[in-house]
Amino acid sequence: MKYPISYELIHVCKQTGARYGILHTPHGDFETPIFMPVGTQATVKTLTPEEIKEVSQGLILGNTYHLWLEPGDDVVKMHGGIRGFMNWDGALLTDSGGFQVFSLSKIRKIKEEGVEFRHHKSGAKLFMSPEDSIHIQNNLGADIIMSFDECPPFHSDYKYMKQSVDRTIRWAERGKAAHQRPDEQALFGIVQGGPFKDLRKHCLDELVKIDFPGYSIGGLSVGESKEEMYEMLEYLKTIMPEDKPRYLMGVGSPDDLIIGSMNGIDMFDCVLPTRLARHGSALTHNGRIIIRNATYKYDMTPLDPECDCYACKNFTKSYISHLIRTDEILGARLLSYHNLYFLKSLMKDIRVAIKNDRLKDFKEEFFVKYGYTKKEENK
Amino acid sequence: MKYPISYELIHVCKQTGARYGILHTPHGDFETPIFMPVGTQATVKTLTPEEIKEVSQGLILGNTYHLWLEPGDDVVKMHGGIRGFMNWDGALLTDSGGFQVFSLSKIRKIKEEGVEFRHHKSGAKLFMSPEDSIHIQNNLGADIIMSFDECPPFHSDYKYMKQSVDRTIRWAERGKAAHQRPDEQALFGIVQGGPFKDLRKHCLDELVKIDFPGYSIGGLSVGESKEEMYEMLEYLKTIMPEDKPRYLMGVGSPDDLIIGSMNGIDMFDCVLPTRLARHGSALTHNGRIIIRNATYKYDMTPLDPECDCYACKNFTKSYISHLIRTDEILGARLLSYHNLYFLKSLMKDIRVAIKNDRLKDFKEEFFVKYGYTKKEENK
Repeated sequence: MKYPISYELIHVCKQTGARYGILHTPHGDFETPIFMPVGTQATVKTLTPEEIKEVSQGLILGNTYHLWLEPGDDVVKMHGGIRGFMNWDGALLTDSGGFQVFSLSKIRKIKEEGVEFRHHKSGAKLFMSPEDSIHIQNNLGADIIMSFDECPPFHSDYKYMKQSVDRTIRWAERGKAAHQRPDEQALFGIVQGGPFKDLRKHCLDELVKIDFPGYSIGGLSVGESKEEMYEMLEYLKTIMPEDKPRYLMGVGSPDDLIIGSMNGIDMFDCVLPTRLARHGSALTHNGRIIIRNATYKYDMTPLDPECDCYACKNFTKSYISHLIRTDEILGARLLSYHNLYFLKSLMKDIRVAIKNDRLKDFKEEFFVKYGYTKKEENK
Repeated sequence: MKYPISYELIHVCKQTGARYGILHTPHGDFETPIFMPVGTQATVKTLTPEEIKEVSQGLILGNTYHLWLEPGDDVVKMHGGIRGFMNWDGALLTDSGGFQVFSLSKIRKIKEEGVEFRHHKSGAKLFMSPEDSIHIQNNLGADIIMSFDECPPFHSDYKYMKQSVDRTIRWAERGKAAHQRPDEQALFGIVQGGPFKDLRKHCLDELVKIDFPGYSIGGLSVGESKEEMYEMLEYLKTIMPEDKPRYLMGVGSPDDLIIGSMNGIDMFDCVLPTRLARHGSALTHNGRIIIRNATYKYDMTPLDPECDCYACKNFTKSYISHLIRTDEILGARLLSYHNLYFLKSLMKDIRVAIKNDRLKDFKEEFFVKYGYTKKEENK
């Protein structure tokens, strides 16, 4: 069938095999690899839609689990979806809620029908099936939506992981059947399988048989080492369909964005930049800095002298350090803005390096300057 | 002597005696009556300088006490003052710290030399003299600065209040003598005296003898009833110099702004609009609303249908209610922006009503619509 999004592969980096391409969506065409800021509760924390435009490429993520619970997908639907609710005229992706069901809820019971679990704050009994997830996502109205999957811990045993992967495949098929807006919203399949390459391949093969307009990689960044993650990405790079976008879910530190891109990933998302901001940390070309520290009290230089974002053009480290130490919201705002802008710039640099067939060289230059050592890199 | 600021009286409302004028400062000329947003810690809470421009007339307030303690006036001076520190190219006023010494510190000892007190958080011993206050304000670099005064409770007994007023007069004289930048910063005297008209007159007369480019009214909004405040304003209206700006400190609810203006006040400041915002309340033409309330969950109308601010043009009550209920910072931002914009618009309406000699009519129309009853008005 004709899907509402498509991926156009334009150039493969001769040095690394990284992919430069264009993701075409109903609300814009986006150069890839792309980093998507996370707007969990229909807001990218602290920022207005106009600011999100400035610090993103125009494609952001919303969380189905959170919006289902508060304000409820009925309220969001009444606004014409998340885009109307938060006044966002760019493109949008929603996750399925599967990850949150497994990461936020302490008590849960997995059945073939779906998952019984407890509200992560109130403890109220809740239930979500693959059909429920797709129904909610149809109401939230994103351009790209996700299959409801089980996301077990990376180091689950093989037997459990096999059962889980098979269930995730069945759930993906049920989700596709339940999808009410396939001509407006592109439903991706999610590849699970933990550290087991044969299970990953099995999962991918079955999903490809069902046929999706894009494939996500789930179950990474959930307790494995960076070495384990990179090893799996290297493997997946060799088997994923070339004509479909590849989305590595929940990953977004600078090293992972570069190494993920080297392994053919086209799409990333992560709460890291905004979470670091709220905790008073800035991503800079010279590494991560904790701006709260008293060492910055008299520092008249910008957060990152190589950055041309609003925060770096207008304020000193001294001022931002003061804002963070006095718990002023403007501090979190400026850091959120800067950190997202930093990743936007990094993705642009990555794309340029791919087009110039020198992403490996770029990685080495960036790592030295950023201060990643071989040891830190694998933390 | 020639002062760096001046006040130009343009029109007196025939219906009320309210004053429409222009306050000339080194960083802009401002129509009065004016409301000045408060930027306690060199930030008007949640907003960037560009946004402050949009929701103010271009004149804001900073707090000497807070900036002295954190980051320290040396750090602010290093940036060329508060304006450079927070990247504000408008005009600025600082208070003296006197009010905070008396309102925030639980333990204090008043001597002729100055005040010994405890840090409001750490409990550390601190001392501030009138000369210290002016020295700090010279470092903070505002266009308008304040004398260091004692701010006793409104209902102190006459004998104490008399002693206190005399000390405040001596401190004002010492402050003027200590002022190092009189050609750049205009130092105001502060009229104290609680509920006692003779003490208020005595204080004002002595301050006028010392000669200041403007006079503030202190010791109101500190425990008295609205009736008591309005009675004192009616009295002060008859005795304050006509050719100098009159600043009512710490007052900024809609009713007080209107009635203060009717009594010849030219300048106001208050934390109310930003504090209400953080607590989820909006000022609207139809009264104050608590946007957190579940009644707004499905409300597709703007915060205030008569307002044309950014928040009202772009978001529904439903969305802002969601942001506040989920503790999202953007909610406090949008409400702060709206509430300040509401007061900016109100001051404009007040000035138009003065020029049209109908401020009393305006007051009555506004009060009915806003929902003030005679009883509420005097709360």
